[in-house]
Amino acid sequence: MSYKIAVLGVTGAVGREMLKCLEDYKIDCVVKGLASARSVGTKIPFNGGEIVVEEATMDSFEGMDYVLGAVENDMSEKFAPAIVKSGAVFIDNSSAFRLNDDVPLVVPEINGEDAFKNNGIIANPNCSTIITMMAVAAIAKLSPIKTMVSCTYQAVSGAGQKGIEDLEQQEKSLMAGEKIVPTKFPAQIVRNAIPNIGSYKDNGYTSEEMKLQNEGRKILHMPEMLVTCTCVRIPVMRSHSIATTVVTERKVSVEEAKAAIKAFPGVQLAEDIDGRDYPTPLDTSEQDDVFVGRVREDLTNPNGLCLWCCGDQIRKGAAANAVQILKLLITK
Amino acid sequence: MSYKIAVLGVTGAVGREMLKCLEDYKIDCVVKGLASARSVGTKIPFNGGEIVVEEATMDSFEGMDYVLGAVENDMSEKFAPAIVKSGAVFIDNSSAFRLNDDVPLVVPEINGEDAFKNNGIIANPNCSTIITMMAVAAIAKLSPIKTMVSCTYQAVSGAGQKGIEDLEQQEKSLMAGEKIVPTKFPAQIVRNAIPNIGSYKDNGYTSEEMKLQNEGRKILHMPEMLVTCTCVRIPVMRSHSIATTVVTERKVSVEEAKAAIKAFPGVQLAEDIDGRDYPTPLDTSEQDDVFVGRVREDLTNPNGLCLWCCGDQIRKGAAANAVQILKLLITK
Repeated sequence: MSYKIAVLGVTGAVGREMLKCLEDYKIDCVVKGLASARSVGTKIPFNGGEIVVEEATMDSFEGMDYVLGAVENDMSEKFAPAIVKSGAVFIDNSSAFRLNDDVPLVVPEINGEDAFKNNGIIANPNCSTIITMMAVAAIAKLSPIKTMVSCTYQAVSGAGQKGIEDLEQQEKSLMAGEKIVPTKFPAQIVRNAIPNIGSYKDNGYTSEEMKLQNEGRKILHMPEMLVTCTCVRIPVMRSHSIATTVVTERKVSVEEAKAAIKAFPGVQLAEDIDGRDYPTPLDTSEQDDVFVGRVREDLTNPNGLCLWCCGDQIRKGAAANAVQILKLLITK
Repeated sequence: MSYKIAVLGVTGAVGREMLKCLEDYKIDCVVKGLASARSVGTKIPFNGGEIVVEEATMDSFEGMDYVLGAVENDMSEKFAPAIVKSGAVFIDNSSAFRLNDDVPLVVPEINGEDAFKNNGIIANPNCSTIITMMAVAAIAKLSPIKTMVSCTYQAVSGAGQKGIEDLEQQEKSLMAGEKIVPTKFPAQIVRNAIPNIGSYKDNGYTSEEMKLQNEGRKILHMPEMLVTCTCVRIPVMRSHSIATTVVTERKVSVEEAKAAIKAFPGVQLAEDIDGRDYPTPLDTSEQDDVFVGRVREDLTNPNGLCLWCCGDQIRKGAAANAVQILKLLITK
């Protein structure tokens, strides 16, 4: 059976990667590529043929089985009612519906069963959150996580195609000895680090930083988990890295944690990557597994563990996770 | 009075910066530039004239008042007895003597008084440690720090001149579409992040990571302080950044902490850097102040505070701190 799938926002970095994931996961499907009016007619290769981009309208979703959303919140909010009314299931990468009680927020390896309790919308979590949760889920299953302190090292692709282009242009300007003029980021990103992703909340945290707690609680089914986070953009193309300290209810030993991480689906314990026992963002780009290394005892708390993880922000952090949710639904 | 000062390791990144700092701090001095045999005869501009590099030998230190050391541990250990015997005071940037009971470990703004209790050797702390301690010292004076969780974003200059050259060469290879071959770092550093600085200890931490606890305790006079740290190299030239969460004995409010940070010598609270309320590494390069931003409550502990700080690794993290120790000694 061939599924009818619309990709909403098909011309963006995540939308294009969703097409690649539909190919990679061998989803038997006919795809409608939707974007704003200015992209109409754009041709995108897919499955040996090509997709001709159509304008997304309220009528675009009739007859679709699934809609993969790779647009900003306002567009997701605009089209969601029409998608749900059409009877399609909307797997949405925006943050618009993630915390709604009647919308499951799903990382298939962690809480895949939640996906089936949907009312037409399933939310794909934030990219750093997916990658961090993949790294700590195995530990959380051994003992509930009480607190987590995380610092991120985030790729420019998290800011979309314009983020990628801003770094590329700045690298060229740097090499040419020309003035560097940021177009997407609030400061120079090449040879720099910017500790500000998202918008400020009243508590001094950014929206991106709060997602780790708010979305992490929902994914792990641990509503009391306390998370404090610092989100930092660095000049890396597409994999996010996160240094995390988790404190669990009971002590989990390093060996126990490593064994559980190694056994967890979609996660690889870094043991020998070109002789290194830790991943770097480049090691994990263009594929779907999250890599974990540097697992060691937290020196500030006997029940704490520290680790370092990396995962491709566009793949597992966005497009691949969405297509994995789709695959889960059609396989069951 | 003009002081006779030898700079040991004068041809390296830190050694050269020590000369600039001697100029910037207007130290009235005659400088002898010492290095290994292969650099003999190299001319380095200084104070309008130039220094001709001499080979460091056991006899190099006779008649010197101070020796600034910018060499590796083995060289510091080799020459220290001769320096002390000559009667000069050795301000050493290596880690060879930092934890010795009879060697003060000094950040002048924090524990300058310790410098006077020396027996001929004063140690300059690790670069990330200096910058982090500068950022948290104001809070520690309000209430002792019980625990600290830190993640670093470290510049390539921390690996010396060869680290700088490795990034520069990798950037060129990237732009030329050529294969990237790391010469100093254990993996590609351009467009990447490497969570491994220093050598592994038995507890899974690196030597660099343990310095923050071991040296931090000594600088702050807080021998019970527990610190857990993840040290990460990123493609930034010369300023280190550190995201830190500190838990203090009593609760320190965000406003109280900000006021104390703002009043602390050598530290600037970032309030408006081109409209931003946080520093980036580039904002803090080529100068000596440590900049602090993102001060906010730790969401995992009512007595915790989170902050982000940046400081020039070659200046305050190494050369400037050493010259500030020298200035303290000759001013008193």
